[in-house]
Amino acid sequence: MLACSMNLTLLLLTLFSFSAIALVSSQCSITGLPLVRNISEIPQDNYARPGLSHMTVAGSLLHGMKEVEVWLQTFAPRSHTPIHRHSCEEVFVVLKGSGTLYLASDSNGKYPGNPKEHFVFQNSTFHIPINDVHQLWNTNEQEDLQVLVVISRPPIKVFIYEDWSMPHSAARLKFPYYWDEKCYQAPNKKDEL
Amino acid sequence: MLACSMNLTLLLLTLFSFSAIALVSSQCSITGLPLVRNISEIPQDNYARPGLSHMTVAGSLLHGMKEVEVWLQTFAPRSHTPIHRHSCEEVFVVLKGSGTLYLASDSNGKYPGNPKEHFVFQNSTFHIPINDVHQLWNTNEQEDLQVLVVISRPPIKVFIYEDWSMPHSAARLKFPYYWDEKCYQAPNKKDEL
Repeated sequence: MLACSMNLTLLLLTLFSFSAIALVSSQCSITGLPLVRNISEIPQDNYARPGLSHMTVAGSLLHGMKEVEVWLQTFAPRSHTPIHRHSCEEVFVVLKGSGTLYLASDSNGKYPGNPKEHFVFQNSTFHIPINDVHQLWNTNEQEDLQVLVVISRPPIKVFIYEDWSMPHSAARLKFPYYWDEKCYQAPNKKDEL
Repeated sequence: MLACSMNLTLLLLTLFSFSAIALVSSQCSITGLPLVRNISEIPQDNYARPGLSHMTVAGSLLHGMKEVEVWLQTFAPRSHTPIHRHSCEEVFVVLKGSGTLYLASDSNGKYPGNPKEHFVFQNSTFHIPINDVHQLWNTNEQEDLQVLVVISRPPIKVFIYEDWSMPHSAARLKFPYYWDEKCYQAPNKKDEL
């Protein structure tokens, strides 16, 4: 009876694994997607970050983009990105709300140091110079901050800082990034002969 | 008296030339621009194309972008892009209105051939595969079509077709493109020794 139950469990687990693989595979497949997609129907998630909503509008892993990637992100009041840098270009277009961009432009020091504060507002645009350490906050208590984000060289490789005095060399690489984890496949290693 | 008048004309012409150069130079200078820019205050133009409004939100020549460029474009009813291709990626986000994307995906033929029609609508997104010949029309008689456009590898090099049966080899290169003409500077030739 015990053996039978274990076999059944094993069978169920096996079936579940296959379904899970099939499900992930279909979510990550770039074939069969319509050319024109309704943004309202694109999945979004908070990736365990309270107050965040992230959607990949056009992405490397999801849609086969090679050179640019576009995100739609919403930050609830008081939510924010980590302090981070990346060696790609990034352009923001603020669709709704307002907030504060913290930007440490002096990349010559050993650590970011005190960042400059920039007020960002609905219908404004700004870009982050390559490798400048930055953080975006929704500092408006009254409403969500919604931004359209464009990055180059996807999928993004992010170096995360605990604080502004953490040395650049100690920043932690997060790759694949949270929203790329599910569909990222490491490049195939050469078959060993 | 004639000589005096000619000298005055020459002086005025010289002064005008200097002012014109200074004006263009200040419009094209990437130094001194604020990091956060109000999109409502960014210049827009139709570049002699009736029904078009183009604005470079974040650009190579205007803002020093190296890898991505972002435009905001509005097409009045019945206005459209030329039939064209480019060897960069392009992502559209439709902010307002609706229209038709004509896309010839078979780049193996000698000419684009009959394109497929795709309906595009408010809050939709689509991207143009590299080198696919395409044309975007505002086919909605009732309202403007407004799109946010992202391209890679700026500034853009566009090959323009008269019609869908023009051979790829006959398409006309337009570079710098209309909105890049004013600020484009050809790379310096090496000083001859």
